[in-house]
Amino acid sequence: MHTVAHPTREQLAHSYLLVRSFSEQLCEPLAIEDYGLQTAVEASPPKWHIAHVSWFFENFLLRPLLPGYQVFHARFDHLFNSYYEQTESGFWPRAKRGLLSRPTVAEVYDYRKHVDQAMQALITECDESDWPLALERILIGLNHEQQHQELLLTDIKHHLALNPLRPAYRADLDISAPEQAVPLTFTTLEGGMTEIGATGDGFSYDNEHPRHQTWLAPYRLANRLVTNSEYLEFIEDGAYTNPAIWLSDAWTVIKQQGWQAPLYWEKIDGAWHEMTLAGLISLRPALPVCHLSYYEAEAYARWTGKRLPSEAEWEHAAASRPIAGEFADAGRLHPRAADVGALSQLYGDCWEWTGSAYLPYPGYRPAAGAIGEYNGKFMCNQMVLRGGSCATSGDHLRPSYRNFFYPHERWQFSSLRLADGVDGGTTSDDLGTTQGRSA
Amino acid sequence: MHTVAHPTREQLAHSYLLVRSFSEQLCEPLAIEDYGLQTAVEASPPKWHIAHVSWFFENFLLRPLLPGYQVFHARFDHLFNSYYEQTESGFWPRAKRGLLSRPTVAEVYDYRKHVDQAMQALITECDESDWPLALERILIGLNHEQQHQELLLTDIKHHLALNPLRPAYRADLDISAPEQAVPLTFTTLEGGMTEIGATGDGFSYDNEHPRHQTWLAPYRLANRLVTNSEYLEFIEDGAYTNPAIWLSDAWTVIKQQGWQAPLYWEKIDGAWHEMTLAGLISLRPALPVCHLSYYEAEAYARWTGKRLPSEAEWEHAAASRPIAGEFADAGRLHPRAADVGALSQLYGDCWEWTGSAYLPYPGYRPAAGAIGEYNGKFMCNQMVLRGGSCATSGDHLRPSYRNFFYPHERWQFSSLRLADGVDGGTTSDDLGTTQGRSA
Amino acid sequence: MHTVAHPTREQLAHSYLLVRSFSEQLCEPLAIEDYGLQTAVEASPPKWHIAHVSWFFENFLLRPLLPGYQVFHARFDHLFNSYYEQTESGFWPRAKRGLLSRPTVAEVYDYRKHVDQAMQALITECDESDWPLALERILIGLNHEQQHQELLLTDIKHHLALNPLRPAYRADLDISAPEQAVPLTFTTLEGGMTEIGATGDGFSYDNEHPRHQTWLAPYRLANRLVTNSEYLEFIEDGAYTNPAIWLSDAWTVIKQQGWQAPLYWEKIDGAWHEMTLAGLISLRPALPVCHLSYYEAEAYARWTGKRLPSEAEWEHAAASRPIAGEFADAGRLHPRAADVGALSQLYGDCWEWTGSAYLPYPGYRPAAGAIGEYNGKFMCNQMVLRGGSCATSGDHLRPSYRNFFYPHERWQFSSLRLADGVDGGTTSDDLGTTQGRSA
Amino acid sequence: MHTVAHPTREQLAHSYLLVRSFSEQLCEPLAIEDYGLQTAVEASPPKWHIAHVSWFFENFLLRPLLPGYQVFHARFDHLFNSYYEQTESGFWPRAKRGLLSRPTVAEVYDYRKHVDQAMQALITECDESDWPLALERILIGLNHEQQHQELLLTDIKHHLALNPLRPAYRADLDISAPEQAVPLTFTTLEGGMTEIGATGDGFSYDNEHPRHQTWLAPYRLANRLVTNSEYLEFIEDGAYTNPAIWLSDAWTVIKQQGWQAPLYWEKIDGAWHEMTLAGLISLRPALPVCHLSYYEAEAYARWTGKRLPSEAEWEHAAASRPIAGEFADAGRLHPRAADVGALSQLYGDCWEWTGSAYLPYPGYRPAAGAIGEYNGKFMCNQMVLRGGSCATSGDHLRPSYRNFFYPHERWQFSSLRLADGVDGGTTSDDLGTTQGRSA
Repeated sequence: MHTVAHPTREQLAHSYLLVRSFSEQLCEPLAIEDYGLQTAVEASPPKWHIAHVSWFFENFLLRPLLPGYQVFHARFDHLFNSYYEQTESGFWPRAKRGLLSRPTVAEVYDYRKHVDQAMQALITECDESDWPLALERILIGLNHEQQHQELLLTDIKHHLALNPLRPAYRADLDISAPEQAVPLTFTTLEGGMTEIGATGDGFSYDNEHPRHQTWLAPYRLANRLVTNSEYLEFIEDGAYTNPAIWLSDAWTVIKQQGWQAPLYWEKIDGAWHEMTLAGLISLRPALPVCHLSYYEAEAYARWTGKRLPSEAEWEHAAASRPIAGEFADAGRLHPRAADVGALSQLYGDCWEWTGSAYLPYPGYRPAAGAIGEYNGKFMCNQMVLRGGSCATSGDHLRPSYRNFFYPHERWQFSSLRLADGVDGGTTSDDLGTTQGRSA
Repeated sequence: MHTVAHPTREQLAHSYLLVRSFSEQLCEPLAIEDYGLQTAVEASPPKWHIAHVSWFFENFLLRPLLPGYQVFHARFDHLFNSYYEQTESGFWPRAKRGLLSRPTVAEVYDYRKHVDQAMQALITECDESDWPLALERILIGLNHEQQHQELLLTDIKHHLALNPLRPAYRADLDISAPEQAVPLTFTTLEGGMTEIGATGDGFSYDNEHPRHQTWLAPYRLANRLVTNSEYLEFIEDGAYTNPAIWLSDAWTVIKQQGWQAPLYWEKIDGAWHEMTLAGLISLRPALPVCHLSYYEAEAYARWTGKRLPSEAEWEHAAASRPIAGEFADAGRLHPRAADVGALSQLYGDCWEWTGSAYLPYPGYRPAAGAIGEYNGKFMCNQMVLRGGSCATSGDHLRPSYRNFFYPHERWQFSSLRLADGVDGGTTSDDLGTTQGRSA
Repeated sequence: MHTVAHPTREQLAHSYLLVRSFSEQLCEPLAIEDYGLQTAVEASPPKWHIAHVSWFFENFLLRPLLPGYQVFHARFDHLFNSYYEQTESGFWPRAKRGLLSRPTVAEVYDYRKHVDQAMQALITECDESDWPLALERILIGLNHEQQHQELLLTDIKHHLALNPLRPAYRADLDISAPEQAVPLTFTTLEGGMTEIGATGDGFSYDNEHPRHQTWLAPYRLANRLVTNSEYLEFIEDGAYTNPAIWLSDAWTVIKQQGWQAPLYWEKIDGAWHEMTLAGLISLRPALPVCHLSYYEAEAYARWTGKRLPSEAEWEHAAASRPIAGEFADAGRLHPRAADVGALSQLYGDCWEWTGSAYLPYPGYRPAAGAIGEYNGKFMCNQMVLRGGSCATSGDHLRPSYRNFFYPHERWQFSSLRLADGVDGGTTSDDLGTTQGRSA
Repeated sequence: MHTVAHPTREQLAHSYLLVRSFSEQLCEPLAIEDYGLQTAVEASPPKWHIAHVSWFFENFLLRPLLPGYQVFHARFDHLFNSYYEQTESGFWPRAKRGLLSRPTVAEVYDYRKHVDQAMQALITECDESDWPLALERILIGLNHEQQHQELLLTDIKHHLALNPLRPAYRADLDISAPEQAVPLTFTTLEGGMTEIGATGDGFSYDNEHPRHQTWLAPYRLANRLVTNSEYLEFIEDGAYTNPAIWLSDAWTVIKQQGWQAPLYWEKIDGAWHEMTLAGLISLRPALPVCHLSYYEAEAYARWTGKRLPSEAEWEHAAASRPIAGEFADAGRLHPRAADVGALSQLYGDCWEWTGSAYLPYPGYRPAAGAIGEYNGKFMCNQMVLRGGSCATSGDHLRPSYRNFFYPHERWQFSSLRLADGVDGGTTSDDLGTTQGRSA
C-alpha cells in the first residue's frame, strides 16, 4: 500500500491496479493444476486466494456502496468468505477449500475482472459522502490483498514441497549466498519511556492502535537474523531429541510431528538440503534460517543464553530506521544474507518471532460489524512477529505492523533475531566462542 | 473385457485399445481442475486413476517382460502404485492422492501414451514362452482398468456432489423414469446342491475360485431392485432416528455421520432431490434407490420382514440369465426402472448388497508376489455385492463376479434386492399391503 | 447353566444361587481399587459387571413379572444398562464406565442382594401363566451372567497387565506346563451334508437358531491348538514386520498399534515373558498361544500353508465329542497343554477363531423388544469363535455355541486350531519338516 | 506456606506437619473408590496427588540429601513423577493416571508415612552446608503440596460432577448467599511507573522473578467479582449462540464442546442449578460466577464494554491490601458474596482471569536441572490468573503470585473482575442501566 495519507481518487485507482496486477503476476508460473491444492488447513489454494480477495472488495465495498451492483455469482459469497461470521452467507469450511474444482480458474479470473471493473466505477463515481468510508475500506482491501499475496507464495511453497517430485515454483530464481555471514554482534538500545503503535501517518490496521506509552529497560539486539549454520549447531547439539531444551507444549508437538529440523530442511545422503521456491537446493550456511516455529525460535534463543525481543523492543529499534530489505517486489523470494555489521535486516528477509503474545493494545476496540473481525478475534493463543519477509511487499510494511501466528506454525518465512537484557551478563564476545548451553 | 477365452494377439491388441480409449472418453467432460480432487479417502482423483492404470501395465508387464523398456519417470512408480506392499517403490499415502498438482494432466496423458506404445510392442513382440504370463496379466490389466473406469465415475460424482454449486458431470444425460415401478413380486428358486464360482470360461479373478459346491435351501428373490418410493416409506417411518431398526455398528455410524437418507439425497424446500452425474434433479420415485450402505440395505430388508440374498443365492439365480441391463457403455450413467414383472435387473443398474461377508472360497490361494495382493488381502470386514451397475462396463461382468465394500461405504451405485426363505411365511401379497414393521 | 431342559423351580433356584455366587467368588481376590478400572473401551470395571448382571434380572424379570417390585435405585437403570436401546432409561456411555466412583462397591453388593431376594421370590411365587416367559429369561439371565464372569476375568487381566507393577490377580495359581507339546497331527473328517445349530436340547441362544443344513467338503483338523513355541517361529520369521503376510486391515492395525507379539507377551532382557492372572511368568513353550486377534490367527494359519476351520467344520467335528477341557470351574485360569495325540482341546483352554463371519443363520429372527438386541444387532464386522476357554464355565458351553469378536480384539483367551482341505495337498508330515512360507 | 523468611528447623518441621496433614484432612470425606478416578486429562486421581506430593520430597530432597535413604518402592519414581523430563525414571503418561488400581490407597498412605519420617529426619539432621538447599526445596515442596491440595479439591469436584448421581463431596457444607450482591462500582487507580514481581520477603516461585519496573496508565477496577445473575444476563442475551461475541478460538471450542453455560451449571425443569462440593444446588444469583474459561471471562467483559485487568494492574492494586477472603482453610469451599462496596475479593473466592499471557518476566531464568521445569516450561499458550480461590490455602498466596491455565480450561474456581481504562468513557453509572452490547 502506498503510504499516502489521503490519496486522490486517481492515485487510488492506480494503486488498485498495481496491487491487483501483482497478484496475477505471482500466479503466472502456476499450472492450472496448482491452483486447487490445499496441503494444510492453514494454507489455501491459489484459486481461493485469487477469488477471496475479490470477494473482499465485493462484500465490503461494491454491495454496500455501488448502486445497482450485480454480484457475479450468488454462491461466491459463501464460497469465498474466509471467516466473517457476521456475513449472512456463512462460509465454506476452511479445511475443505481444496475440495472444490468449480468454479474453474478461468471463471475465477472472470470474477476478478467483474470486480475490477466495478471497483474502477466505484472509485470514480462514489458520492463524496460515502468516500471516506470507501477510501478506508479500499485501503484495507488493498492491504488485505497484499497479505494474501504473501500467503499465496508461502502456500504454494507448502504445496510444492509436499510433492515428492519437489517441483520448483520458478526454477529461474537466484538463491545465491556469500560463503560466510557477517559476524554476530549486539547493539545496545537505551529504552526508557517510549511509545509504540501506529502514528496515524498513512494506513495502519486497527490492531496497531491505540498508540500508547510503554517502558523499556535497556536492551541489546543482534545485528542480524540467525543463520542456517548457527541453527545447525543447535541441531547437532541434539536439540530435537532433548526435552530439557523445549517448552512443554513445544516438546509435545516435536514428538507428535517428528520434527528434526526446520520445515523444508531435508537430509539427502548425509547432506542438508532446503526446499525453496526455486526447488530443492543444498543448504546455504550464511543465509538466515527460516520456516521456524515460535517454539524453535524461542528454544534456540534460550539455548544460546539469549532471548527473543519483545515487540515493543523491536518496534522501538526499528521505528527510526528505513524500511529496506529483501521484499517480494525484488523477486528473489528467499531471504538474503546480511551484508553489514550494523543493525540490519529489520525489514524483509524473514519475519522475526518476538516474545510477545498477540493481545489487544490497552484501549483497543475493533470496528463494528463484520470488518471488525479482521484482526480482533484472533487475539489469543498467537505470538507476534515483526518486520516482514522476502514474500512481503515493501510498501505493505511499517514499524508498527503486527503479524501473528500460532506458536507451532512455520510455513511462513519466519526466523529470529537474538536479544538480551543489558545486565544479563553475556556479551557478544562470549557468544562468539561459546555458543550454546552444552559448550 | 471380451469374454474370449484365448484371444489372439490381434484380438487382444484391439481389446486393449477399446478399454484404454474408454477411460479417456469418460474423462472428456472434465475440466483440468476436476482431475486433481480427492473428496474422500476411498475416492481418488481422476488424474490418479488415469495414471495408476497405466502404472499397472508398466509394473506388471513392461518392466518384467519387455526387454529394454525405459520407465517414463523414475518416481511414478512411487506415486501411482496403489497398495502393493511387495513392490519396492512403496506408495504415496492413499489419503494424500489429492495433494499432488504435479505431474500435470498433460504429463499423465503423455505417460499413458508412452505405456500404450510399449504395450502394443509387447503384444506384438512378446516371446511365445512369456506369452501365457503376458496374456494373463494383460487380461487382468484390462479388467483392472475397467474397475477404475467405474471408480472414476463414482469418484467424480462424489467430488461434484460435495461442491455447493452442484455441478453436473454431463448436463446432457437423460435420467428419465416412468411414473410408477412395476409391481414387486417374488420368484421362488428351488436351490439344492449347486455350484458357485468361476467356470473357467473366459476371464475371471482369483477370488471367484475355486468353483465349489454349496447347498441352498429353497428361496425367493424379488423381481427387481427396491425403488426410491419404497425406500422413502422407510425414511418416513422414522428409520434414521430409531436405533431398534439398525445393527449396532450401523447406529454408531448413523449418529456419527448424521445420516438421514441415502447419500446424495437432499431435501430442498420440503422436496427430495438427488444429485446425479447430470446434476441435481428431483427424486424419481420409480427409479431404484441407490448409494446405500450395507447397513441401510440390511436394515431396510429386515424392516420389510425380508432379508438380503446370500451371494450363492444370487449367483444361482443369475447364472442362467443373460448379462443384460443398464451398463456404463450405454451412457445413461444412472439406474433405469425395471420394465418387466419377471426376475430382472440382475446385471447393471445398481450393485446389490448381499448378506455374505467377503471371505475366501474354500481352497482359495492368491497368486504369489505382488499381483497376489489384488484381491486376497481384502478378505475381511467387507460385504459382497453382486451384479454390476450403470457405471460398470457390460463385458466386465459375469455371474461369478464378486465385488466388495465396507458396510458403511455408499459412494458406489449400490442398492438391494429383497430375498426370503420359502417357509419364512410372508408372501408377496402380504408385502403389498403391510409393508414395514410399524404397519 | 445346567443343561436341564425344563428345570423345576427348585432346581432353577439352586442354579441361580450357584451362578450368582460364582461371580462373587471370582471377585474375592480383588482390592476395592480394582473394582472401578476400565483400561479399554471393550473392557468394563468389575463393579460394573457385578451391577449389570443384576440389572439384567431387574429389568427383564423383576420389573415386568414380580408384582410390587421396588427398584433398588432409580438411576441404576441408566447406569447399568449396557446397550439396550429399547430400554427407556438410555445408558451411560460404554467408554465412561470407569469414571464412576459411586455407587460404591458395597452399594453394588447391596443391590445384588436386593435383586437376589426378589429373584428368589419370583422363582417361588411366579404365576404359572408367566412361568414359561420367566423361565426362559432366567435361563438367559444366568447364561448372561456366566458370560460376564468370563469377561470379568479377562477384563481384570487387562487392567492388571497395563499396570507397570504387573500385579497378580491370584499369585497362587498354578501355570505348570510340560516340556514339550504333543506332536501336531491332523484328523480327516468326511463332511458331507450335515446340520449345524442348536438342537433344542437344553438352553441355547437365539443366534444358534435355526438349526439348518449345510454341506461340507472333506477336511482335516489339527489335533490341538497352536503352541507358544510354534507361534514364536512365526514371529522369528519376521511376521510382524512383513506386510506380505497380513490382510490389509491387519497390517493397518499392526502399524497403528505397534504389535510385535500376542497381547501380554513381553520381552525382558531378551527372554519372552507372558502376563497371566498369576502375574508375569516366563513363556511356557508347550502351552497354547493365546490372546491372538483374528488377524494373527488367520495370518499364522496361512503362513503355515493351512487355514482356519469354518464354524460349521468345527461344530461338525465337535458335536459328537464330550464337553471336556480346561474351564473356569477348575480354577487354573490359564490354558493347559494338550496331552493326547487325538483330536482334543475342542472345549475350554482357548476360544478358537474360525474363518466364519458372524452372520445370521438362514431364517434367523431375533426376539421382539429389547431382549432381541442381545445377539442380533452385532451380526456384522465380527468373526465367530468356538469352543470356550479356561475362563468359561464348563456348563455354559455346547457344540452350537457361537462366540464373536471384532478381528482386532485379543483380550479374550483366543487362539487357533489349524485346518485344511483334504486335497489341499499339504500333509501333516510335510508340516512337521517345513513349517512356514519362508522355510 | 508460612511466610517466614528464614524459618528455624523447628518451625519448618511444624509447617511440614501442618501442610501434610491438611492433605489428609481433605481426603477424609472420600470413599476408597473416589481415590482412583481421572475424569479429564488435566485432572488427576486423589490417590495420585497424595503419592505425587510425597514423591516430590523423595525425589528432590531425600534421595539427594538424606544419606542412606531407601526409596519406598523402586517403581514409584516412574508412577508418581508428574512431568519432569530430566528425571531418569521417565513418567507414566498423564492421561493414564486413572488406570492404576495398584498401589492401593493404603499402600500410598504407607508411602506418605515413610516419606514423612524421613523428612523429619532430614530436617533435624541435615548438614549445615546442605541446609540452604534443603530449606529452599522444602519450601517449594510445601508450596507444591498446597497447590495439589487445591487441585485435589477441583479434581474431586470434576469427578463427582460427571457422575449422574451428582454425589456431594461433603453434603454438610454451607453454601449460603445473600439475596442480592453489593452494587457494582469502579475504583480508579492512578498507575504510573510501578514495580511488580516478588519482593524477596518470604517464599516465592521463580516465575514471580525478577521484580521489575512497568508502566501503567490510569485504570479502574470493579469492586467485586462478576455474579451469577450478571452472567445470566449474558447467557440470556444469546451469548453462547452468537459468534460475534467470541474470540475465534473460543467459538471453535464452544461449538466443539457444546458449551451453553459455565461448567457445572445445569438447567433442570427450566431452573438453573450448579454442582458444588456440597452437591447440586439451585443457582444463587448473588454469588460470584465461577468455573469460567478465559474465553468466557474475556467475552463477558467485552460484552459489557469493559475488559479484563492486566496482571500488572491487578498486582498494583492488590499489593497494598491485606490477604483476606474466602480460603480453603475456612472450609466453605465455595466462593462467598462480596459484602462491601469497596474494592474487595482480591484474594480467595475465585481466581481472576487477567488479560495477560503467561510469559517470562524480563530477565527470568529457571533454575538448573529438573526443578527448573517447575514453572518455566509452561510459559506459552496460557493466561495468568491472580488472587487465589476458596480452594487455596490463605498462607499460600501473595500479591505477586502468578497462576496460569489454558484459555479453555474451567475446572478451577475461576472468575473475573471487570476493568477499564480511565478515558474509556463508560462509567459505572452507564453500566448500571445499559449492560451489554445488545441493550
